[in-house]
Amino acid sequence: MRILLILNAVLLLAPSSAAQRLRELNLMPMPSTVQLGTGALPIDQSFSTRVTGFQDATLERGVQRFVAELSQQTGMLLKHKPAEPTNPTLLIHADHDREPVQKLREDESYELAITDSGAKLTAPTPLGILHGLQTFLQLVETTPAGFAAPAVTIKDQPRFPWRGLLIDVSRHFIPLEVLKRNVDGMAAVKLNVLHLHLSDDQGFRVESKRFPKLHEMGSDGLYYTQDQLREFLAYARDRGIRVLPEFDTPGHSRSWFVGYPVLASNPGPYRLDPEGPDSVTDPTQDGTYKFLDKFVDEMARLFPDAYFHIGGDEVDGKHWDANPKIQAFIHSHGMKNHQDLQAYFNQRLQKILTKHHKLMIGWDEILHPDLPKSIVIQSWRGQESLAAAAKQGYSGLLSFGYYIDLMWPAARHYAVDPMSGAAATLSPEEKSLILGGEACMWTEWVTPEMLDSRVWPRTAAIAERLWSPQDVTDVASMYARLDKVNWRLDGLGLTQRSGSFRMLHRMVGTDEISALRILADIVEPVKDYTRMESVKGPWDFRAPLNHLVDAVSPESEAARHFRDQVQAYIRSDYKDQAAEAQIRTLLTTWRDNDMKLRPSLQRSFLLLEVTPLSEDLSALGAAGLQALDSLDKSEPSSEAWRTQELSLIERARTPKASLLLMVVASVQQLIEASAGQTKK
Amino acid sequence: MRILLILNAVLLLAPSSAAQRLRELNLMPMPSTVQLGTGALPIDQSFSTRVTGFQDATLERGVQRFVAELSQQTGMLLKHKPAEPTNPTLLIHADHDREPVQKLREDESYELAITDSGAKLTAPTPLGILHGLQTFLQLVETTPAGFAAPAVTIKDQPRFPWRGLLIDVSRHFIPLEVLKRNVDGMAAVKLNVLHLHLSDDQGFRVESKRFPKLHEMGSDGLYYTQDQLREFLAYARDRGIRVLPEFDTPGHSRSWFVGYPVLASNPGPYRLDPEGPDSVTDPTQDGTYKFLDKFVDEMARLFPDAYFHIGGDEVDGKHWDANPKIQAFIHSHGMKNHQDLQAYFNQRLQKILTKHHKLMIGWDEILHPDLPKSIVIQSWRGQESLAAAAKQGYSGLLSFGYYIDLMWPAARHYAVDPMSGAAATLSPEEKSLILGGEACMWTEWVTPEMLDSRVWPRTAAIAERLWSPQDVTDVASMYARLDKVNWRLDGLGLTQRSGSFRMLHRMVGTDEISALRILADIVEPVKDYTRMESVKGPWDFRAPLNHLVDAVSPESEAARHFRDQVQAYIRSDYKDQAAEAQIRTLLTTWRDNDMKLRPSLQRSFLLLEVTPLSEDLSALGAAGLQALDSLDKSEPSSEAWRTQELSLIERARTPKASLLLMVVASVQQLIEASAGQTKK
Repeated sequence: MRILLILNAVLLLAPSSAAQRLRELNLMPMPSTVQLGTGALPIDQSFSTRVTGFQDATLERGVQRFVAELSQQTGMLLKHKPAEPTNPTLLIHADHDREPVQKLREDESYELAITDSGAKLTAPTPLGILHGLQTFLQLVETTPAGFAAPAVTIKDQPRFPWRGLLIDVSRHFIPLEVLKRNVDGMAAVKLNVLHLHLSDDQGFRVESKRFPKLHEMGSDGLYYTQDQLREFLAYARDRGIRVLPEFDTPGHSRSWFVGYPVLASNPGPYRLDPEGPDSVTDPTQDGTYKFLDKFVDEMARLFPDAYFHIGGDEVDGKHWDANPKIQAFIHSHGMKNHQDLQAYFNQRLQKILTKHHKLMIGWDEILHPDLPKSIVIQSWRGQESLAAAAKQGYSGLLSFGYYIDLMWPAARHYAVDPMSGAAATLSPEEKSLILGGEACMWTEWVTPEMLDSRVWPRTAAIAERLWSPQDVTDVASMYARLDKVNWRLDGLGLTQRSGSFRMLHRMVGTDEISALRILADIVEPVKDYTRMESVKGPWDFRAPLNHLVDAVSPESEAARHFRDQVQAYIRSDYKDQAAEAQIRTLLTTWRDNDMKLRPSLQRSFLLLEVTPLSEDLSALGAAGLQALDSLDKSEPSSEAWRTQELSLIERARTPKASLLLMVVASVQQLIEASAGQTKK
Repeated sequence: MRILLILNAVLLLAPSSAAQRLRELNLMPMPSTVQLGTGALPIDQSFSTRVTGFQDATLERGVQRFVAELSQQTGMLLKHKPAEPTNPTLLIHADHDREPVQKLREDESYELAITDSGAKLTAPTPLGILHGLQTFLQLVETTPAGFAAPAVTIKDQPRFPWRGLLIDVSRHFIPLEVLKRNVDGMAAVKLNVLHLHLSDDQGFRVESKRFPKLHEMGSDGLYYTQDQLREFLAYARDRGIRVLPEFDTPGHSRSWFVGYPVLASNPGPYRLDPEGPDSVTDPTQDGTYKFLDKFVDEMARLFPDAYFHIGGDEVDGKHWDANPKIQAFIHSHGMKNHQDLQAYFNQRLQKILTKHHKLMIGWDEILHPDLPKSIVIQSWRGQESLAAAAKQGYSGLLSFGYYIDLMWPAARHYAVDPMSGAAATLSPEEKSLILGGEACMWTEWVTPEMLDSRVWPRTAAIAERLWSPQDVTDVASMYARLDKVNWRLDGLGLTQRSGSFRMLHRMVGTDEISALRILADIVEPVKDYTRMESVKGPWDFRAPLNHLVDAVSPESEAARHFRDQVQAYIRSDYKDQAAEAQIRTLLTTWRDNDMKLRPSLQRSFLLLEVTPLSEDLSALGAAGLQALDSLDKSEPSSEAWRTQELSLIERARTPKASLLLMVVASVQQLIEASAGQTKK
């Protein structure tokens, strides 16, 4: 009893505590150190900036964007003027220039001090300034007295130097305007590497002047010209983002073979067609390496980053096995198997990269003791392979656990730490080889229309994992801040919310989508590779992605909030009346929704398939209400009723139209609780 | 009784009738003739186009955009391929090229024939093709069997040759990307003139190489360069839109005087400042005309349109009266007043325009018998002045009734016809001088952030008035189609919906805006010039527009739907239970909303002012529910109660925070009905 009282006292105090205050701020990723002061800096139309110390055009553009974003964020017509006052609202000072090409481990630190009379942002280089400006924007709040930034002293630098987002632009082409707004999103949460998966079986997406049949025949006409890419690379650099190009080889490379079948291990012809023949690169011919030498030469000039990603994943040995000439090569060179052959290929490719002044990076499978320690292993397999690489002296980054195409909730990604598991046992020196990680947006089921909704806001949680101290792990705090980040990213032009509404309108075919939204808000796409596994025959990358599963968010905010309310209600011994009222309102809405939604479902071929989901939701609503009545009246429900309702629960748990109803478990809890619980 | 039965029979038949079917289609503006066929053309991934007859790059780009929009609209990955099949889904045929510079009265007609096996679009020129492609896009529906366009034969041409939208880019600068998406919206509803109000007291928005102090000193640095404008003009031409430049003179021209005070009637200096000195152009100096000659020469080369708008409105004579030199000029030239002086100025300016091959257009005030019949009068005063001009042989267009900054509902604009009132009595010859009209988006209270929401969807109703036959006047049909147009325009990238959500998030400062949305959805900004009149002292064009009044739609869809439901309920003699249930749900939501919204209101300086509105809405909800109970139980309410509630109605009717609660009248109806109504 005493403990409870103390806990209550703490809870009562909590709103004014520093931890609670931090959670209320929009900061994401959480800075290394935050010291809260007293008071706040008013942000009004007199807002001004002044840059001292190092200055250049990049920094100038960065400050201009900052003022424009602050203007957008507040609705005040702020303008960055070249001649700013000596006593500005925000003083910005960088010591010296950044590297001409952004480097791994380049200093990104900054310090931001805000008092009620002014703010000062200092950093060694403009890179830190860019991060600090984003922090400042996140601090600006709407208060009863006006816009204001709380008094605070922040000293901040990243935990890991490599914080990336991979976007697969091969399976579905992603236009540069979509990439640009995602770069803006990355900058807002302090990510610093955009990894472009530029080629795969389904498309080769970069113009090659040396080998024009790569993009001409290896794509459906959708690719980036070199001029467009140069402009884009400058855009990313301006925002402190490195761009890492990946050309996947020797596997995942059918798109190369459409124009250049000679590179393949099996005779063609090849075509961009799900049903067409498949192959991998032939590593036994000198011609392959001559081709790669010229190709890398061209791409190394286009992409300035020090690293060059060669893919190297999932090489299917059967194509090499099926070619007698390749089998003979393996035997004559004393190799044991096709892993050895791939290692041979990688060694030759690595020499080509070195010749063109590039460092090699590739997926787990490229790890081989014959390769130099300068290469980087990107692990899609887990912390174990990362640790194994580190023990051999290789650098690595983690992508296992950060595959955002698997539709996991943010909390699950958030719990994945590059330094956990096997990596936790490494020596400090070995640990320093773990560079960070990358969220991976594979696009088998993603078009430009819903890309933003697959990337955001969950990637912001991964960004926090990679930037913030290891002990920043409070999931409730993360979600509280993630919800805010979500609409702030929306303000940058990302479409993770608005895009969904447009798709719902299309499905319904009218302007009335409220009933469909109620269903859409509490479902999630099936997880992992369930959707891919449900495909009969070869996966067709040209199939339209215009179903409800394509429109809904990977993680339902509404279902999470419902779960929280049910937990609060149960924790209160069914006494929390506010929670009960909210639960009742939602259950009633769900119960009644099927009737409202039914006409839309019957009118649209895109929605017929969700009819059983809508029915299930209605039944869940009714069952939940009955359970709530039992709990409310302290009248235990009958076992017969519960048995019947729990069979409904089982039915509702089964995916339909590749969608999961995310409120099933909470309703089940209510039904089970109705068995014997009484108010205390 | 018999009549009622027949009416009911008609209502029951209505859904299958042609009129009802037309209303269900998304067509807006309604074509001249629509003949419905049977069946529908399936639109699937095999969709293809083929262009025969005249072909050029503009047409090719138009077809490419069409396919991209169809792809966006359906979520299918459609691509326009250069080599299309001989038997395409849609055959496109234009007879010959359009004019090198789009002309007034250029043929815009087209014919579209759709059967269940294919569609054919023919037109004299690509202009008609562009319109026909938009019609095709509007016809594509989501059906139980897939996407489809109904079998239909459409022969279509505009009623008026001049269908415009004026955007004032001076009071608030509007970036070209915002103008571009509005041009897309214009093309979607077949408008064909974008009138840019490029200069006014608050800013001069075009780069002048001849007189650089115009844009450098006459703006806050926000203006269009000539290169940018050339690119934009090509963009508009590609979409069948003429761009009409307006440089307002001799009034509304303080921004000219900041850099060139010598042009003004009073000594300066001038500055861009609401509190600064004001003036008008001095028409008595030869220097003024030398300046204008060079200026028009430069701008005439930049803007290819045959017309050049000189403004000419609201010249304040006091500045001329105050200058003895100008007074002497008036007397020495035998003029009676400053109207004569303005006519003198216009005549000289008209000669300059003729020299540079431009036709003059100006507001009502420029009408003067000494000007040639080639000029066009744009009437902000009404059909009377339009008719008066036509009787004197002058062409004209109507903007009176189409001022969309006045926050009128679409129905009110829709009811305004250029040929009504005094214009209805004109001879056929005189009538042919009435060219059409222009919606006017003055931007005193509009920034780029909410421009789209002020323009759309209401301007689509004006577009229908100007394109469709005069007898297309069914308001219910218009609204049914306008609601669909609204989200379709959203799909083009217009932000009239999403922009509002962003502003609400800013006001609340969190991600939870549902309670604020409930209030926001049923209020409208005050009408006419009420907001301007509420300003104390000079209007400050730099003031932030970030209040609730800036975020809400000019016309509340939700309030309109509520009104319709209350009407249906009353018409049914209070027997329509579906209507009653919906009314009850809404009233309950409103009654309970204030409690939910209150914490947000108290937390945000932007929302404090709407507290009384939220209280009123809550009271209206409670009063409406009580009235509904009376009606439901056939128990008349007491007079004392009604008197008390009607005083609440009076209070709720008063604007607060420049906002009107749009459900007051409907709740009042319920209260009044509760007096003695009983169920029959």
